[in-house]
Amino acid sequence: MAAKEDLQLLGLAVSPFAIRVRIALNLKGVSYENLEQNLMDKSELLLKSNPVHKKVPVLIHGGKPICESLVILQYVDEVWTAAPSILPAEPYNRAVARFWAGFVDDKLFPSMVGILKATTEEERAAKVSETLAAMGKLEEAFAERASGKPFFGGDSIGYVDLALGSTLIWLEAVRRMFGVAFIDAGETPLLAAWAERFREAEAANGELPDADIAVEFGRTLQARWAAASAAAN
Amino acid sequence: MAAKEDLQLLGLAVSPFAIRVRIALNLKGVSYENLEQNLMDKSELLLKSNPVHKKVPVLIHGGKPICESLVILQYVDEVWTAAPSILPAEPYNRAVARFWAGFVDDKLFPSMVGILKATTEEERAAKVSETLAAMGKLEEAFAERASGKPFFGGDSIGYVDLALGSTLIWLEAVRRMFGVAFIDAGETPLLAAWAERFREAEAANGELPDADIAVEFGRTLQARWAAASAAAN
Repeated sequence: MAAKEDLQLLGLAVSPFAIRVRIALNLKGVSYENLEQNLMDKSELLLKSNPVHKKVPVLIHGGKPICESLVILQYVDEVWTAAPSILPAEPYNRAVARFWAGFVDDKLFPSMVGILKATTEEERAAKVSETLAAMGKLEEAFAERASGKPFFGGDSIGYVDLALGSTLIWLEAVRRMFGVAFIDAGETPLLAAWAERFREAEAANGELPDADIAVEFGRTLQARWAAASAAAN
Repeated sequence: MAAKEDLQLLGLAVSPFAIRVRIALNLKGVSYENLEQNLMDKSELLLKSNPVHKKVPVLIHGGKPICESLVILQYVDEVWTAAPSILPAEPYNRAVARFWAGFVDDKLFPSMVGILKATTEEERAAKVSETLAAMGKLEEAFAERASGKPFFGGDSIGYVDLALGSTLIWLEAVRRMFGVAFIDAGETPLLAAWAERFREAEAANGELPDADIAVEFGRTLQARWAAASAAAN
């Protein structure tokens, strides 16, 4: 059933940016070779494929590298057009989807990473508030955009679902590490139900590892940031 | 010749993000009502149209607001399809254009703003280096992508041209304020010639105000940042 393509993904199991690409490729029913990367010792292939940012994910299609996860999602949508669309068809709805996916990457995710990076309780509390505020905006966006449908994308997983859904593992990891729930039935009932549906969707199945792996990765990152900060002072 | 549309742009003469939208609308030959905003005293219309970021530009088409300049450029390209395309047609070329436009907004522009925001000479020198390094990457990208053609977009102005070209006024303002040239015939000969062509293109004509206006605006921003920083300490 799956198309056979000359397609490799340079990814990382816990990277939300790689997770969203894997789920998108599943949605399209495209098979690919997954090349798990070690960010502590970057491969020649990664450095050559993404010389500007040196980051995962990189999708290599017929030998040509495509970098930056949201760019990759749009590429996947434009190349494999036979399967269900990731972006809506109508220009205004496409613009709104791009706006909210950008919001996840520019506001929600940096705030959440700020919780891990914070060096004082005051700073951490400020980042928790920012993350909660961003999630509140996304709850409102879901109410307005999905209007009763199961996903941001309507009846199936779309662009904003991929952007936000791929962060679920990290939202859960931060909850386990600091005891703050960002998506819960009380404050964000629509997103709580949406997250359940997203996790259970066939395309996401197996692509969202247990959050304990992210907790462990998060602690490694914290130790590295602390060491870098101590070295700089 | 220009189509008559129910179209308003909430913009600002010196905003690179608004400038790129104005040039894109010129490329498409679309007429619109320009509603210049005062960012020191934001209008009800701006706050209502972009409640999340409260920033210009916002394009309001048939009463519906579209926010975030790169989202707007893609919207304009998808709605007014009769005029020349802003993004290339082929998926890989579209991905590369999206990558470099993102690079301008995520790397080049923040580094350049960092020069204005710096509070010490050391910090400023670091941001100058970052900006020069980013421009070096763009010079390489131009050599690779344009391959002898006048613009990143080939024979006419495209997505990356709009993203980078709209920052020219600020690159020149920073040169006037701090004496550092980021695009010059010695270090970035291809971009120096490209910038000349961009400024002279019909669609850009009148949309790139004299950099002295940006210098004045930059000094106002610096005073505000200094006051905010003093208040926080």
